[in-house]
Amino acid sequence: MPGITDPKINDYLMKLSLEDDPLVLEMERLARENDFPIVDRLVGRLLYLLTKLKAPRLVVELGSGYGYSAYWFAKAIGTGKVILTDNEEDNIAYAETIFGKAGLSEKASFHAGDAVGIASGYRDIDLLFIDIDKHQYPGAIKSLLPNLAENALVIADNTLWYGRVTGKNRDRDTLGIKKFNKFMFGNADFFSTLLPLRDGVLIAYKIR
Amino acid sequence: MPGITDPKINDYLMKLSLEDDPLVLEMERLARENDFPIVDRLVGRLLYLLTKLKAPRLVVELGSGYGYSAYWFAKAIGTGKVILTDNEEDNIAYAETIFGKAGLSEKASFHAGDAVGIASGYRDIDLLFIDIDKHQYPGAIKSLLPNLAENALVIADNTLWYGRVTGKNRDRDTLGIKKFNKFMFGNADFFSTLLPLRDGVLIAYKIR
Repeated sequence: MPGITDPKINDYLMKLSLEDDPLVLEMERLARENDFPIVDRLVGRLLYLLTKLKAPRLVVELGSGYGYSAYWFAKAIGTGKVILTDNEEDNIAYAETIFGKAGLSEKASFHAGDAVGIASGYRDIDLLFIDIDKHQYPGAIKSLLPNLAENALVIADNTLWYGRVTGKNRDRDTLGIKKFNKFMFGNADFFSTLLPLRDGVLIAYKIR
Repeated sequence: MPGITDPKINDYLMKLSLEDDPLVLEMERLARENDFPIVDRLVGRLLYLLTKLKAPRLVVELGSGYGYSAYWFAKAIGTGKVILTDNEEDNIAYAETIFGKAGLSEKASFHAGDAVGIASGYRDIDLLFIDIDKHQYPGAIKSLLPNLAENALVIADNTLWYGRVTGKNRDRDTLGIKKFNKFMFGNADFFSTLLPLRDGVLIAYKIR
């Protein structure tokens, strides 16, 4: 299994990306202490920048964890709203606390339960962020296609899945990610790119 | 000197990124045959996607080579215009031919000569692309700051410079890139990110 980015490069990028927001630092510390999977600061900053460019009114997250990625979206979003979803009540409760401390509560809506089910209640999604169980990615995007706005942005985390996409692994998560990537790059409704940042970030722009 | 992205990952990304535009393929073939440095297809696709998101009216390139990156900008730009600059008359002439074949001539303006000097004749640059000699990056951005539009996007290629930014190299190109990255990440007017794609792509969003 290959690595993705050379660790020295990653260190260099982290050193450039200084952070002084105490809530970002608190969430990052919590992730380290509990070995909780979050997109890292580099991906967080990319989400922030893409949100500034896209200026979405509605961001829907599938799999928010305790709100790290949602926090970057909310900080950048302007007048829009971020919908958080996670299976775990505790994660969602923690996210609510963090957003409250940051004064960002009004920019967000918090939901514990099945991410795709909750998301399907929203129309005209401008930015869909996918970070649920990996085997669920292909089903999730297919079922939510009718819910995307024109020129929507789809961003999916872990789309290199520790580099396993390059090998012969047949587990359902690796197969799910490979199928998802093929679907996104092969679908004429999207223009897709996949960045080798952290564990792989697929970014797709809906053309029609 | 570290690599940047694992070659197997790169292969996987290239296989996903199929291309059928004969002019893209022609320029890529020319680059291989002449060992001419172009941003590759993965970076080209990223430029396309960012251009779709940003919808710039004016893109200015510092260092267009024979027009590969400009071609991706022009394909995505809608009603805007791309300004190409390069020291070499032959490169600019080739770019003009390619753009003519593609029916994109009206979306571009072609200039042989000093890139920064030419660029400084433009105001309200929405997207500045930097790909000149690496030691020139810090001077170029500083002198063109007044020419950037509000919320401009600055994209700079080769900002990991073969991974040399992580080491002790003291040559002027490595020092130039390190200084440029520090400047962009340390400047409160910009929100910056640096993607470990190909040789490093810095993307900065002008906040004010």
